[in-house]
Amino acid sequence: MTKTQQVRLAQRPTGLTDADTWDVTTEELPELGDGQILVKVAFISLDPAMRGWLNDVRSYVPPVGLGEVMRSLDIATVVETNHPDFAVGDTVSGLFGVTEYAISDGRGVQQVDLAVAPGPTWLGALGMPGMTAYFGLLEVGKLKAGETVVVSAAAGAVGSVVGQIAKAKGATVIGIAGGAQKCRLLTEELGFDAAIDYRDEDVLRRLRELAPKGIDIYFDNVGGEILDAALANLRRGARIVLCGAISAYNADTLPPGPSRYMSLLVHRASMTGFVVFDYADRYGEAVADIAKWLSEGKIKSREHVVEGGVARFGETLNLLFSGGNTGKLVLAL
Amino acid sequence: MTKTQQVRLAQRPTGLTDADTWDVTTEELPELGDGQILVKVAFISLDPAMRGWLNDVRSYVPPVGLGEVMRSLDIATVVETNHPDFAVGDTVSGLFGVTEYAISDGRGVQQVDLAVAPGPTWLGALGMPGMTAYFGLLEVGKLKAGETVVVSAAAGAVGSVVGQIAKAKGATVIGIAGGAQKCRLLTEELGFDAAIDYRDEDVLRRLRELAPKGIDIYFDNVGGEILDAALANLRRGARIVLCGAISAYNADTLPPGPSRYMSLLVHRASMTGFVVFDYADRYGEAVADIAKWLSEGKIKSREHVVEGGVARFGETLNLLFSGGNTGKLVLAL
Repeated sequence: MTKTQQVRLAQRPTGLTDADTWDVTTEELPELGDGQILVKVAFISLDPAMRGWLNDVRSYVPPVGLGEVMRSLDIATVVETNHPDFAVGDTVSGLFGVTEYAISDGRGVQQVDLAVAPGPTWLGALGMPGMTAYFGLLEVGKLKAGETVVVSAAAGAVGSVVGQIAKAKGATVIGIAGGAQKCRLLTEELGFDAAIDYRDEDVLRRLRELAPKGIDIYFDNVGGEILDAALANLRRGARIVLCGAISAYNADTLPPGPSRYMSLLVHRASMTGFVVFDYADRYGEAVADIAKWLSEGKIKSREHVVEGGVARFGETLNLLFSGGNTGKLVLAL
Repeated sequence: MTKTQQVRLAQRPTGLTDADTWDVTTEELPELGDGQILVKVAFISLDPAMRGWLNDVRSYVPPVGLGEVMRSLDIATVVETNHPDFAVGDTVSGLFGVTEYAISDGRGVQQVDLAVAPGPTWLGALGMPGMTAYFGLLEVGKLKAGETVVVSAAAGAVGSVVGQIAKAKGATVIGIAGGAQKCRLLTEELGFDAAIDYRDEDVLRRLRELAPKGIDIYFDNVGGEILDAALANLRRGARIVLCGAISAYNADTLPPGPSRYMSLLVHRASMTGFVVFDYADRYGEAVADIAKWLSEGKIKSREHVVEGGVARFGETLNLLFSGGNTGKLVLAL
């Protein structure tokens, strides 16, 4: 019998999650059945979208149920197998949840090649954030070389890849992030053309200075006032790619919408939402391109790895909403 | 010498226009020069967009200057000509302004065929509102047969044509309008499948009942709470066509934006603005289609004609914002 420590949803939060949100339990897993694998989790992905999964509302995935193990994408090692496709020692990714060990029937479980990149990168640039950046920018945003791209939460898991893919494709890239340190990272390490510190600068005015002809693509991870600042600086035919609205994820009521949305009319612009899962049958294409850019040094993967047990999941998740992480936030068990 | 009464912009309004907004003057026109025509205006188009032209802000057309004759599209008769393309007695349309007589060099002036439809219809279903409905629905909205279309200000100049084109193309059509009389017009005369009276009904709930599978296209003429109600009822892959925001045109400050805009993400939906002038080289195509539908009875043109002199322009314009008109609002001199 395998004992595993797990994090279960104890009560639905209002605002930020806290200790009352979670139950940390230790349980015994059943015997491994036919066609199943037992995995030992090494890395747990922490993602802003997780906050949405805690609300009891219809969305693109069902909410996590009360009492259920918190949903998460993990990198894990196969430690026992009754499944023909998996051998002991394989490294895999899957929605195993916030747990030390898990049993899976192998559905949705992918082999991970550590020769291409280490585990955390498979949760970042080569994982969902990378897929989100790739398809959002190229398929939804329809980026063309020479365009001006603005991305918010630019030092985050998705934003940092968006900016670097845009540079690799010949765009001018402006990143918006919180704090001088993150802004320096963008311009000095990740190759962005410019960075705006939203905590210290007037984003609307700075965008006007840095993109005097207007923005062609705004990749929005945050919503709120920064979305309005981008709307005030659109170029004709601009595309706003709606990826997230982290500024609102912990709000009890719907915050005001983008009051400058009629700028879409004046500039013949569009605002389009997408969900990365719709591109699942094309992930291979994105992984191949991003792995190539990583090997060429055109993309640098940034992960923010917190070490600890599953019990640290809750406090680590809140780093996302305080701006405490730079790059992909990962809990390493 | 020809004397003409004209309406000039006296001061920029805050909120609704009033008597102080306008100067009604009587002036003598100069002698007709070479290559010019003198026209006598018969019908003046009144349009919600006119309110935006009075604000001193950059938009898709420059604002009307203080002291200038108010810009308007008119149907007029050529009464004197020094231009080879125009004969006395020709009926034409052009941006002659709110005036009884005007001199033009013929640029942007179109011949109008009264055998196809009477003058006011050339300002409605065959004019800018018709062009706006046609290209907004078919090019921006990319309507497909069998889809569910919702249009606001549905008894207005644009909305009434949007709904009827959608029906002609095989869609299910729900109109949103103010008052039982307008709603009856939609379903009993214009062939809409259903109508919602926003003054008397909960639009969000009624949309859920009438479009249980969600809305494919929402053609937005109003903004505000009705846009949010549509956002709450989108179908996967929905398109919101941003045509106007009449609920906000008289506001001094930007009203709140659509707080449910993140519904675009969940439903992989888009919101796209457009300006009909971009389709100017294709107006002929739209006029041909709409004229055919008019002759077949598939589209009924509705005009609301107010009789009077140019001095009645100001009070007539405000009918648009009080919901006082049904169909295309026209001032007949």
